[in-house]
Amino acid sequence: MKSFSQLVVGLLLALGIAAGAQAQAPFKKAEDAIKYRQSGMFIMGQHFGRIAPVVKGEKPYDKDEVAMNAAMADQMSKMPWGGFVAGTDSGDTTAKPEIWTNAAKFKSDADKMQQEMSKLAEVAKGGNLDAIKAQFGATGKTCKACHDDFRKKK
Amino acid sequence: MKSFSQLVVGLLLALGIAAGAQAQAPFKKAEDAIKYRQSGMFIMGQHFGRIAPVVKGEKPYDKDEVAMNAAMADQMSKMPWGGFVAGTDSGDTTAKPEIWTNAAKFKSDADKMQQEMSKLAEVAKGGNLDAIKAQFGATGKTCKACHDDFRKKK
Repeated sequence: MKSFSQLVVGLLLALGIAAGAQAQAPFKKAEDAIKYRQSGMFIMGQHFGRIAPVVKGEKPYDKDEVAMNAAMADQMSKMPWGGFVAGTDSGDTTAKPEIWTNAAKFKSDADKMQQEMSKLAEVAKGGNLDAIKAQFGATGKTCKACHDDFRKKK
Repeated sequence: MKSFSQLVVGLLLALGIAAGAQAQAPFKKAEDAIKYRQSGMFIMGQHFGRIAPVVKGEKPYDKDEVAMNAAMADQMSKMPWGGFVAGTDSGDTTAKPEIWTNAAKFKSDADKMQQEMSKLAEVAKGGNLDAIKAQFGATGKTCKACHDDFRKKK
């Protein structure tokens, strides 16, 4: 039979209270894990976002610049996932608990985004603006799909 | 002869007021540039920092883990520099104005760090812990040198 303290610990863990306050290896604290993934997403978003005005025709197309931004976004798309460690769904984050309760779907969505972002980097090297426009749209859809399911509205 | 408005604009620019409030291409606002470089530095610091306990003998040496962290830190070491655009030395930043007034020295320091971080990634692949310890120290010195000269005390 479980002791009273074991029951209390079990209850706290079930509520995510103890987990949220403890270190989240390999991070020293939960806040670091949150900051890590947000940092990666931010840098990726900056580079991906710089391609938007070109795709929309608001900015002249510069092949090297678009290719560089797509390459940086592709590189960064591999980064944030290590930050989604268990017990980091509270605090300064818009991560939904479904990231951990529906982890297979989250991973599938994240993988799809990385695949599309890699395709964008490839297409951007090629220099065909119509192909870039199409692939930019396809990539953006995978960002949105994952945000719709796994990110709280800001 | 300059008009009054030209003189006012010149004065504002000299004081960095207009510059600080305006967009800092390729960033939409100065805060984004600051967040961009801080994000890159944070991710790099996380991966570099995870090697420290191994080097200090506080954590068992795992070759693949150290090599992965060194590779991630190396990759991220190329990232933050685009964020140091002119007019972003105020706000939520510890960047010293010397980054822009002594730009050649800043670039030289930043280049040195990147070179040493790349060496660390190479050495870490090799799997010789003594060599990793030496190169971790050499890399850390280049971080510190640049922070001493170009980062405000927190």
